[in-house]
Amino acid sequence: MGGTKISGALSDLDGNLIYKHTIPTNVHEGELSILARIIEVIDKVIVGSKIKIDQIMSIGIGSPGTLNVKTGVIIAANNLPFKNFPLIEAIKQRFDLPIFLDNDANVATIGEHILGAGKGTQNMLYITVSTGIGGGAIINGNIFRGNTDNALGIGHTTIDIDGRKCKCGNNGCIEAYSSGTAIAKLANEAINRGENTSLNNYNVVTAKEVVREAENGDGVAKRVLDFSLGHLGIYIANLIKIFDPEMIVVGGGVSMAGEIIFSKINEVIKENCLEEIVSQCKIIPSKLGRDAGIVGAVALAISKSN
Amino acid sequence: MGGTKISGALSDLDGNLIYKHTIPTNVHEGELSILARIIEVIDKVIVGSKIKIDQIMSIGIGSPGTLNVKTGVIIAANNLPFKNFPLIEAIKQRFDLPIFLDNDANVATIGEHILGAGKGTQNMLYITVSTGIGGGAIINGNIFRGNTDNALGIGHTTIDIDGRKCKCGNNGCIEAYSSGTAIAKLANEAINRGENTSLNNYNVVTAKEVVREAENGDGVAKRVLDFSLGHLGIYIANLIKIFDPEMIVVGGGVSMAGEIIFSKINEVIKENCLEEIVSQCKIIPSKLGRDAGIVGAVALAISKSN
Repeated sequence: MGGTKISGALSDLDGNLIYKHTIPTNVHEGELSILARIIEVIDKVIVGSKIKIDQIMSIGIGSPGTLNVKTGVIIAANNLPFKNFPLIEAIKQRFDLPIFLDNDANVATIGEHILGAGKGTQNMLYITVSTGIGGGAIINGNIFRGNTDNALGIGHTTIDIDGRKCKCGNNGCIEAYSSGTAIAKLANEAINRGENTSLNNYNVVTAKEVVREAENGDGVAKRVLDFSLGHLGIYIANLIKIFDPEMIVVGGGVSMAGEIIFSKINEVIKENCLEEIVSQCKIIPSKLGRDAGIVGAVALAISKSN
Repeated sequence: MGGTKISGALSDLDGNLIYKHTIPTNVHEGELSILARIIEVIDKVIVGSKIKIDQIMSIGIGSPGTLNVKTGVIIAANNLPFKNFPLIEAIKQRFDLPIFLDNDANVATIGEHILGAGKGTQNMLYITVSTGIGGGAIINGNIFRGNTDNALGIGHTTIDIDGRKCKCGNNGCIEAYSSGTAIAKLANEAINRGENTSLNNYNVVTAKEVVREAENGDGVAKRVLDFSLGHLGIYIANLIKIFDPEMIVVGGGVSMAGEIIFSKINEVIKENCLEEIVSQCKIIPSKLGRDAGIVGAVALAISKSN
């Protein structure tokens, strides 16, 4: 579930998606309408799968925002109108099944751990580099949520104490350097300074265009990307020193650019970290890619039902 | 066990120290001599406690450096001559008891968790701010070691990507700003610039003198301390966002200065973190203080023997 669309799927216990359905969220219609649309997706998925409801084991839901995972309440979400909304209770009135809710980063982390790149690991981090930066941690084989279910709120941790102003109000958050939004902003700043770059050929410059023109050899695009990824590399190095994980799975839109992203990140991490530790930690792209959310919700349901 | 002294104690299962003995490490005499001195401390403690060896349950040892906790080997340590030294095996030849080894930060973390300020917590961080900066994490009630037993190597994580050169070779590590060594260095830089400060009245200026003169109202000492603690506050805020813990216990020499340290740290953390999360996290001084190492080793033995 996101600010733009609601996707649902029915899956077997191995994570194979049997039937998938997506509709727009229509945020402006308000929380009760979104609830109705969630129920619509679940209905469509059950009907489309041609499976009887008594064969369904459980429902998993991934949502942005601050949640109470235990009570199934969405406390608040930037891109959704829910405020202290008892989502699980509301859906349960229509589908009397075990229903599990978790935030989107945790759901993607569980997805990569159970059904994706991190299968079989005991200590793994998932980082999503997209509009924002978020993450989740698998510790001793289980998702780590922290005291108030807000662990791994990594987007607004500081990498440069006197650095760029972040929209959160603080200075130097990693999200202000290495998110897709930050890459676009840095590139547009260069364009507005009148720098000579092939990015001038686009009406709108997002992270995608920056990556494309960097791959084409444009100096400004390359410099912006190196700067952003240099920060991301140091940031991942920090996480390696803190968590000493077996694996870091990097997902989200920015990571999908592939080689140009990972070669730079790996170079920076190797320079910054002790060989003994970094040699034991694989840094790899998400296996679930754009399906991380939906497969993650499936994985949440599977992990809770076992 | 440290670069300066070796301390041992016999304790009951509640962590009450029954008899304590300390001797110098004499690092220059080499690893076999240090081994003999460790054994001497254990002997003296047993004799001094007037307890029979068959009443002793186990031995816990805290050591600096990179260790293999599972095999009981000291791989390397900055302040000790050990290189791939099988410490547990060597001590076992003299005392046939269960023997447990862990690094000093983990041992202090376990100490604060089982016998100190963090009793009863499930998710707790311990940070030591001393010559260097280190830490440990209790996650779901247990010490968290990571994949290669090197988790929470926090001293050399980056807080200012283009910042001060650290002795590790990288820039902007938290240890280069907020350790006792860094506070002393920043103060001495101000003195060497000819700044007007009461710190000029000392032959040698360490963190201790900086704290004292800051408390006496000296502007330069106050500025240095505020700068260091400002960085430490942001750094602890980062750790709160990452771990979302119930409690952060701050120990080590610098923390013992008390109020002047904690009031500044708390002010910075409150400014930087979301109220919902920070209001659920207590930041408190170490309860074990100078005994963190020795009580920690006792706690390690107790935690392993249960």
